[in-house]
Amino acid sequence: MTSQPLDLLPDSSTSFLSPYLPPSRPSDRVFVTLTYAASLDSRIALGHGQRTQLSGSESKCMTHYLRAHHDGILVGVNTFLADNPGLNCRYSIAGKSPVEASPRPIIIDPTFRCKIESRSKSMMAAACMEGKEPWILVSAEWRNSVSPSDLVHIQSTERMGARVIPVVGLQSDNRNESWAAILKSLKELGIRSLMVEGGARVINDLLCTAVDDINGTKVSPIDVVIITIAPVYLGKNGVEVSPATALDNLYDITWDQFGRDCVMASFNKKLRATF
Amino acid sequence: MTSQPLDLLPDSSTSFLSPYLPPSRPSDRVFVTLTYAASLDSRIALGHGQRTQLSGSESKCMTHYLRAHHDGILVGVNTFLADNPGLNCRYSIAGKSPVEASPRPIIIDPTFRCKIESRSKSMMAAACMEGKEPWILVSAEWRNSVSPSDLVHIQSTERMGARVIPVVGLQSDNRNESWAAILKSLKELGIRSLMVEGGARVINDLLCTAVDDINGTKVSPIDVVIITIAPVYLGKNGVEVSPATALDNLYDITWDQFGRDCVMASFNKKLRATF
Ligand SMILES: NC(=O)c1ccc[n+]([C@@H]2O[C@H](COP(=O)([O-])OP(=O)(O)OC[C@H]3O[C@@H](n4cnc5c(N)ncnc54)[C@H](OP(=O)(O)O)[C@@H]3O)[C@@H](O)[C@H]2O)c1
Ligand SMILES: NC(=O)c1ccc[n+]([C@@H]2O[C@H](COP(=O)([O-])OP(=O)(O)OC[C@H]3O[C@@H](n4cnc5c(N)ncnc54)[C@H](OP(=O)(O)O)[C@@H]3O)[C@@H](O)[C@H]2O)c1
Repeated sequence: MTSQPLDLLPDSSTSFLSPYLPPSRPSDRVFVTLTYAASLDSRIALGHGQRTQLSGSESKCMTHYLRAHHDGILVGVNTFLADNPGLNCRYSIAGKSPVEASPRPIIIDPTFRCKIESRSKSMMAAACMEGKEPWILVSAEWRNSVSPSDLVHIQSTERMGARVIPVVGLQSDNRNESWAAILKSLKELGIRSLMVEGGARVINDLLCTAVDDINGTKVSPIDVVIITIAPVYLGKNGVEVSPATALDNLYDITWDQFGRDCVMASFNKKLRATF
Repeated sequence: MTSQPLDLLPDSSTSFLSPYLPPSRPSDRVFVTLTYAASLDSRIALGHGQRTQLSGSESKCMTHYLRAHHDGILVGVNTFLADNPGLNCRYSIAGKSPVEASPRPIIIDPTFRCKIESRSKSMMAAACMEGKEPWILVSAEWRNSVSPSDLVHIQSTERMGARVIPVVGLQSDNRNESWAAILKSLKELGIRSLMVEGGARVINDLLCTAVDDINGTKVSPIDVVIITIAPVYLGKNGVEVSPATALDNLYDITWDQFGRDCVMASFNKKLRATF
């Protein structure tokens, strides 16, 4: 692969983003940035399984700049299957190799449907020293009663350098419990900052999730929301971002034009605010 | 009523909007600006019949500035019933009275369901010299076989200064035919520029409509699209803008932040471009 590095962002764009980057000080929980690109009608793909390039080159560059500032980048297994994403960072960061600049790809995949291969883009990026090997979060229940053929697949996946990580509580029907389990595992694995990129199920769930803070209060796990809006309509059959309930959680909102797209950056209130 | 005039927009905002305003030169067709305010998830109301204030004061001011630059402002009857909108212009324009600055309210209402009253906000605005009396576009078929009680209602509506205008072809099942009929009538009535504000049915239809141009080519009737995006989610039960098909028609796109909202202004290609 050996892909071209992306152009650098102008100073105005890096200044626009800087307040929203994860803090360098240590914290007792994972800093979560929710980020995705949507059409004017809040679609993130033309249809299920249809890879759709929405962002222009400027906002794509912005996404890679954000990736350089996070320890991990998380997607749901359907995104992995539909898009075969590289999930690496192609933005050049002074003093860092592409591997160092790249976040750890993390795939939520309770029953290991992703069947990762050496030809998967994220594996190829790692093989070319352009990214890190993915971690696949599977449910501990599934892992404990795995079939012989799945076990072979887990072993071959791990031989390629990826990791298949059992998470207790991942397959819970309760999204609060399952996200609490995901974030607890990632924290233990050393991930301090996480970019959540999609797909729709992951985004819609996360927007409505509440986890316990250190005082036992139910709070949103999202710290920052950064959305790219592309000036197209994907139409009513597209894959839609719209949470189950109305939310008015964003504050300190700024918008900046990137090419023909616009990017909204904002902080997210920890306590749920209904519109 | 006698409502407060709105603040003036800063010069940066009027410069941002100026390329997109209707031209002053005469044309053989109506200049159409599609404009609405949506949430991040492309909802324009929390639910059917629920009036939802989405825009902040700055972008509301922008909408009234646009109203001052159009001859007519059009909504579907459901919007009239749900929101009881004033549809006047509260932005002060030097040398123009509020009545002169206000566009003509136009309601698409094939079977005259709106049952307008003197207490309706748009009638009150007109009575207070703060707006014009509405025109209600009804279907000619309906008007030709109207019941005695509806006839009484038409007469009382017209005595208040509003007009009930029969349009041949309005109730057609074919949206291209019905929009061709609407625009033809409005042109004959002296409307040179039209702002289409909603609701969802009207917007989704219009985005996919094609009418004959002077050469008989099917083209979009929309000239300009101006959308306000408010940084909230209205959630999946909200009233949604998303056309039936994917569209990549917008060009010369600029975005500008108004308070915590963002406004996208763009031209619309006449020939349909699919994403
Ligand atoms: N424009 C963008 O920015 C962007 C970014 C990413 C993706 N996308 C698009 O999004 C689409 C995919 O979205 P999607 O909604 O179909 O799928 P998705 O969110 O990518 O993946 C959903 C799957 O992940 C697993 N999962 C997610 N959350 C979980 C949780 N809390 N606990 C346990 N398992 C969980 C489940 O797998 P199981 O079914 O195995 O239980 C679930 O079915 C693709 O078309 C892709 O192109 C767009
Ligand atoms: N945020 C915003 O900017 C904004 C702006 C406006 C409205 N809204 C919201 O939008 C919602 C209403 O939207 P909606 O989709 O329910 O209704 P709507 O678009 O306001 O009105 C639809 C009705 O208008 C008539 N109509 C529309 N197009 C027609 C055509 N081409 N030919 C013949 N008749 C036509 C039909 O009446 P018949 O059913 O009688 O045939 C149709 O049912 C409200 O909740 C309102 O708050 C929001």
